[in-house]
Amino acid sequence: MEQYSDRLDGIFQALADPTRRAVLARLGRGPASISDLARPFEMALPSFMKHIHYLEGSGLIRTRKEGRVRTCVIEKKQFAAVEAWLTEQHGLWEGRTDRLEQFVIAAQKKGESQ
Amino acid sequence: MEQYSDRLDGIFQALADPTRRAVLARLGRGPASISDLARPFEMALPSFMKHIHYLEGSGLIRTRKEGRVRTCVIEKKQFAAVEAWLTEQHGLWEGRTDRLEQFVIAAQKKGESQ
Repeated sequence: MEQYSDRLDGIFQALADPTRRAVLARLGRGPASISDLARPFEMALPSFMKHIHYLEGSGLIRTRKEGRVRTCVIEKKQFAAVEAWLTEQHGLWEGRTDRLEQFVIAAQKKGESQ
Repeated sequence: MEQYSDRLDGIFQALADPTRRAVLARLGRGPASISDLARPFEMALPSFMKHIHYLEGSGLIRTRKEGRVRTCVIEKKQFAAVEAWLTEQHGLWEGRTDRLEQFVIAAQKKGESQ
């Protein structure tokens, strides 16, 4: 549970930046080299690399070096952690509605029996 | 679009902390006062209030003061921004699959006509 929570910290932190989200959107369409990924951004390469390292650290992307080119690939299964967390929240909300429904039904029954 | 992106920055940043996620999970079950929310955490109230202000700033919760008690309420519609973003990503991934499928189908047709 701790590990899951730590993983979510890293993932949400990684998603809290427009450059990193744009890189993920690009990689969602297929693998790309660092230089291709960096091109649309007006950013020095060392700054851009910090974003890549951040994404790699969160597990949202993998990188592999082939010769002189480093290629980035999206890691879709990490997104499932976010989706699982959102599903949990919906479950809590619905649990609440269920309890409210039970209360309303109980109140109606009480009203009928009076 | 800029506003949407800024909003996502704030939301993801707010979600990147276990205390703030625990507060959201608690509020998912119904409104609660600051003191009730703070109770499970071994944290000084000023530190806890920073988390509340952070969540309020991101729009994930609202607070209202009634007499001396400040009550917090979850703002479910802000979660929709995260869900919309995730749906966008899935759309990109599926677009990619579609293009791959088209390529495979085209290659098969080419194979059949040879």
